[in-house]
Amino acid sequence: MKNSNPKENLGIVETQFFTFGQTPHEMALESGVKFGPITLAYETYGELNKDKSNAILIFHSLSMDAHAAGFHAGAKNPGWWNDLIGPGKAFDTQKYFIISSNVIGSCKGSTGPASINPYTNKPYGLSFPMITIGDMVKAQKYLIDHLGVKKLLSVVGGSMGGLQALLWAINYPDIVSSVIAIATNTRQTAQQIAFHEVGRQAIMSDPDWQKGDYYGKTIPAKGLALARMIGHITYMSDQSMDEKFGRKLIAKERVSFDFSQDFEVENYLKYRGDSFVQRFDANCYLYLSKALDHFDLAKGGDLASTFKHVRSNFLVIAFTSDWLYPAYQSKEMVKAIKANDIDVSYVEVKSSYGHDAFLVEVEGESHLISHFLSRMTKEHIK
Amino acid sequence: MKNSNPKENLGIVETQFFTFGQTPHEMALESGVKFGPITLAYETYGELNKDKSNAILIFHSLSMDAHAAGFHAGAKNPGWWNDLIGPGKAFDTQKYFIISSNVIGSCKGSTGPASINPYTNKPYGLSFPMITIGDMVKAQKYLIDHLGVKKLLSVVGGSMGGLQALLWAINYPDIVSSVIAIATNTRQTAQQIAFHEVGRQAIMSDPDWQKGDYYGKTIPAKGLALARMIGHITYMSDQSMDEKFGRKLIAKERVSFDFSQDFEVENYLKYRGDSFVQRFDANCYLYLSKALDHFDLAKGGDLASTFKHVRSNFLVIAFTSDWLYPAYQSKEMVKAIKANDIDVSYVEVKSSYGHDAFLVEVEGESHLISHFLSRMTKEHIK
Repeated sequence: MKNSNPKENLGIVETQFFTFGQTPHEMALESGVKFGPITLAYETYGELNKDKSNAILIFHSLSMDAHAAGFHAGAKNPGWWNDLIGPGKAFDTQKYFIISSNVIGSCKGSTGPASINPYTNKPYGLSFPMITIGDMVKAQKYLIDHLGVKKLLSVVGGSMGGLQALLWAINYPDIVSSVIAIATNTRQTAQQIAFHEVGRQAIMSDPDWQKGDYYGKTIPAKGLALARMIGHITYMSDQSMDEKFGRKLIAKERVSFDFSQDFEVENYLKYRGDSFVQRFDANCYLYLSKALDHFDLAKGGDLASTFKHVRSNFLVIAFTSDWLYPAYQSKEMVKAIKANDIDVSYVEVKSSYGHDAFLVEVEGESHLISHFLSRMTKEHIK
Repeated sequence: MKNSNPKENLGIVETQFFTFGQTPHEMALESGVKFGPITLAYETYGELNKDKSNAILIFHSLSMDAHAAGFHAGAKNPGWWNDLIGPGKAFDTQKYFIISSNVIGSCKGSTGPASINPYTNKPYGLSFPMITIGDMVKAQKYLIDHLGVKKLLSVVGGSMGGLQALLWAINYPDIVSSVIAIATNTRQTAQQIAFHEVGRQAIMSDPDWQKGDYYGKTIPAKGLALARMIGHITYMSDQSMDEKFGRKLIAKERVSFDFSQDFEVENYLKYRGDSFVQRFDANCYLYLSKALDHFDLAKGGDLASTFKHVRSNFLVIAFTSDWLYPAYQSKEMVKAIKANDIDVSYVEVKSSYGHDAFLVEVEGESHLISHFLSRMTKEHIK
């Protein structure tokens, strides 16, 4: 297929910050707690058109940030979804105005447990309030208002980002024209909660955690690395691990057959765990994983009726080897949406990459997303 | 179907101990190290018949022990496979002489890292040599010789026990008449190694671990509990966790929505982790999980030719929802066995219990095992 629109990378991009909720205008959290001020980190790519009809809001997964595409000045690596966002790409910045929003509770520039509490001049730590996916969405609504955006052509996310996208469609049916929900679900399962809990216990068992009061001291590096190691196993599949590592041994002078790393897969996990500690905050991991665990779109009730006021079109994508957010959950979601006579396209992409597929199956996703967005443009932009 | 042979429990049973390998008769380990003395804990049920042709050797999984059936004096709970072993049961103690052997490296009465080194009068700790599945099997051969058993009607095991059974058939083709290999495989996968490694890192990251020198001091309880929590997730299935716990919350006075356990599944894991610490040794977990990781029947070569000298009949059982030892691995095993024109029956039992199925799918297993053993009795006992 001839591509008349060659793909290009965005150039240098910058994270921006928006602060709201100053006294006495604190945001009411789902728990009832009033909280502020709140800063959200965000990035935008492309231009908002004259009638403000081409905005797309993108949400990240647990460990990511607002930097979805392009390059930060001096950086070698681009944003986490750079393959999908840019001129000529699926999220074509020549056509769409992309907003990528970090979440409340994050440690990536938004207000979270590692942020300084302006009332005490100390990091919040565990005095940070518990937050929900609903709180993330509510805070993002402030951002959208601030940017003067009244309509969203699409809300888009994979994994935790998908939960935000679904909740946007339900909470703001007049604003959201379409939803792209990738490798996600409508409620976290017992197995997902279980893996999160082991990660949290690993962090809280680390003596350096100190009930969350470790800022400026020794961080709970071992606990956080363990949590990330567990996460990485769940992001890959049995098959992708077998293809990438199999039973390959590390090239040591001599295989010591002791309790140091013998196999490449062990080395990989150690590397991933240790590097995560350099870029993520342990308390943040606790707060975001708890927000995930408590996510249940239907709140224990009927899922179909949850979508009854929704007016968006849906594109739902699942991956065959994703066992953390398995395809059967996407099918349940699609069934519940369809029960309301809502237009929904469902695609199960064959992939061996497990949950990671939403970050790496670029070609399949690009095709699906660009076609869906073209159709949405025709249907929703007059 | 009328049962002319009503099932009964064995009464009180006792663990016995056999010690060998005293100086200068140490056992040569696979690593080349000569090691002894070695004690193996074992139990026997039923009677060895006159021509010594009815012996069956049973192997346990990572965290189990020699106590497979009956009751220890004063105990409320029977052995771990009591539903399958006893008068009238699948392993009918009126017909067969059952030997259940604990492994070298264990903390359940056999010589392992928690045992006292008779040359120093201190626990071995990390001075205990690395052991392999091959070493477990070799030590069991000493036990069988000691018991005067020259032929085994069957060798039987699930999970790690299945690895021992396979290796028995390969290493001692003249002794082993048949193999029952349940929920097991011929090589540990990258994913299995990965889960073990996280468990080991959890133990070794616990400051109380003290490089394995914690005996008589504070044990690394948090690390070992974490390792067990991870294990438990892998032993269950997404479906069995959903059916057992779903998203049920703990009945608290008030759901605190903090970092204590909110969900029943979290409480279950905590309970399982904490109770494991009461009955298992952290160093033992390191040694046995490493023995598993290094298990590769074909040693990187051709699997089919590994079975070329084997003369046993095989019954291979896998479970549909077992994702830790998935059925595709059993199928590979069966294919490799069949390539040698060996008689093999393969059954994939439909079950939602995940890897735990080999302990709980009693009815299905009983049926398969009792029929297979009847056939083996006809074919191998003249």
